[in-house]
Amino acid sequence: METLKIVKIGGNIIEDETSLNVFLELFSNVEGNKILVHGGGRRATSIASKLGIESKMVHGRRITDAETLEVITMVYGGLVNKNIVAKLQALNINAIGLTGADVNSITSKKRPVKDVDFGFVGDVTQVAHESINKLIQGGFTPVFCAITHDGAGQLLNTNADTIASQVAIGMSKLYETSIYYCFELNGVLEDFQDKNSVIKHIDTTRYKTLLEKGIIVDGMLPKLENCFHALHHGVHAINMGNTAMLTKTNDNFTKITL
Amino acid sequence: METLKIVKIGGNIIEDETSLNVFLELFSNVEGNKILVHGGGRRATSIASKLGIESKMVHGRRITDAETLEVITMVYGGLVNKNIVAKLQALNINAIGLTGADVNSITSKKRPVKDVDFGFVGDVTQVAHESINKLIQGGFTPVFCAITHDGAGQLLNTNADTIASQVAIGMSKLYETSIYYCFELNGVLEDFQDKNSVIKHIDTTRYKTLLEKGIIVDGMLPKLENCFHALHHGVHAINMGNTAMLTKTNDNFTKITL
Repeated sequence: METLKIVKIGGNIIEDETSLNVFLELFSNVEGNKILVHGGGRRATSIASKLGIESKMVHGRRITDAETLEVITMVYGGLVNKNIVAKLQALNINAIGLTGADVNSITSKKRPVKDVDFGFVGDVTQVAHESINKLIQGGFTPVFCAITHDGAGQLLNTNADTIASQVAIGMSKLYETSIYYCFELNGVLEDFQDKNSVIKHIDTTRYKTLLEKGIIVDGMLPKLENCFHALHHGVHAINMGNTAMLTKTNDNFTKITL
Repeated sequence: METLKIVKIGGNIIEDETSLNVFLELFSNVEGNKILVHGGGRRATSIASKLGIESKMVHGRRITDAETLEVITMVYGGLVNKNIVAKLQALNINAIGLTGADVNSITSKKRPVKDVDFGFVGDVTQVAHESINKLIQGGFTPVFCAITHDGAGQLLNTNADTIASQVAIGMSKLYETSIYYCFELNGVLEDFQDKNSVIKHIDTTRYKTLLEKGIIVDGMLPKLENCFHALHHGVHAINMGNTAMLTKTNDNFTKITL
C-alpha cells in the first residue's frame, strides 16, 4: 500500500511570514503523496474586528454567525489558502487549494443546537476519498482550509484538526496514512514545565498509563482522544511536534500508534 | 473533437443572490464539458472601503496595490468563489474553485510599469491545459476567479474576460471550445438605444462593416477585439448576451465566428 502523509499546521505558523516560508520549504521536501491542512488563526479575528464584526464567544468557544462565516470564508478559503498555494507552486509543488465544497471532498452536518448554538459549524459526515485521490493521482497536492459544506449550498466552519483526522481516516481506504500535527510544543511532554521531556512513543498501553498518572490533561486530552479515534479507524500513525519533525534527521517528537 | 463551453459571468450577476441562483441553475443544465469564470464586482470595493482601504483609480482604472490584492484574494478567491462552488454542489455539479495558482493553471506576468503602475495586475502568459484537463476528465467542473499567479509565489489580479478567453485558447488544443460572455445586454446591438436590435451573427466580414459604420464603439470595441483574437487562436465560437442564452430555446444573442 502506498503511503500518504497528512500535515496539519495551526495559526501560529500561518500568522508569521517567516515561519510559514520555513514550514512550506520543509513541507515541499516531504517525499511521497501528501496533503496539507491549515487553520486560520487570529487573522480572521482581526479582519472581522476591522469590519466591525464582534467575535462572539460562549464558554470560551467561538460562535460562527453568518457574518463570521463570511470572514472565515474570505480569510481561510481565500487569503490564507491561495497564498499558500502560490508559495507552494514557487517551490515546485503542484498545489491545489480546497474547501470541503470543492470536488465535494468533505461533507458535514450543521451542529445541532443543544445548550449552545454554535452557528455555522459543521461536523464531518463524509470524505470523498475517490475524488481526493483523483487529484493526488493527477500529481496535485491538496491544501485544505478549515471549511466544509453541507451539500445543500451551505459552507460550514470545521476544526482543522478534525479535518486532518477525517481526511486521514477517509484516505486510509486507499493509502497507509499518517498524520503530522505541527504545533508549538516539541511533542507530548512528560513534564509540561520541561519542553525537552518529549514522550517519543505513545501506544495504547502507554496512553492508559499516562492518563492514569494525570500526565495528559487540559487541551492535550481531546487531542489524544482524537488521535486514538483516528488510529482505531484505519490511520496508521500520528506524529505530534513542531515543524522540525518534517526534517529527515530530527526524531524529537511524539509518535502515536495503537 | 469533444466540445468545451467556457461561461463567463460579471459582477452584476454575482452581486444579486437571486440572479446568481437563477444563473447557476441555468449553468448546471448546460450539457457537456464546461468551465465557469467569474469576476468579483463591487463587493470587493465595499469590503475594501469597510477595511479602510481606498480604491485608487488612474484614468478610470483600478490600481491593485498590496492591500487591494489581499481584499481581491479574500473576496474573489474566498467568499465569491467558494459560495459558487457550494451552490453548484447543491445542483449536483461537482465544481472545483480555482485561482491560476491552483494546479498552476494560469501563469501571468506582472504588468510592466509604463505611464501607469497598475500594481499587482498580471497579463496571462501560460495556461496549463493538460492540468485543467485532468480536472475535467476527473468529472470536475472548474470555477475560475479572476486571480492568476507569477509562478514565483505572487498572486496577481487579472481581468475575468481575459481569463475566459485565455483559458478557451489554451483548451482549444484539446477541445472544440466556445465562450459564453454573459453581460447586461441581450447581445451586440445594431442600435444602442434599442435593446432588442441584437445582431445575431458577426463574422469577419460583418465585423469590418460594423466597425466602418461606427456601430461598435466604446466598451464594445476591446471586447470584440478580444473575441477575434481568441477566434484567431483556436476558439471555435463566441456568444455574447444575457444569461438566457444558456437556455435551449432562446436564440436572441450574438454569435461571433471567423
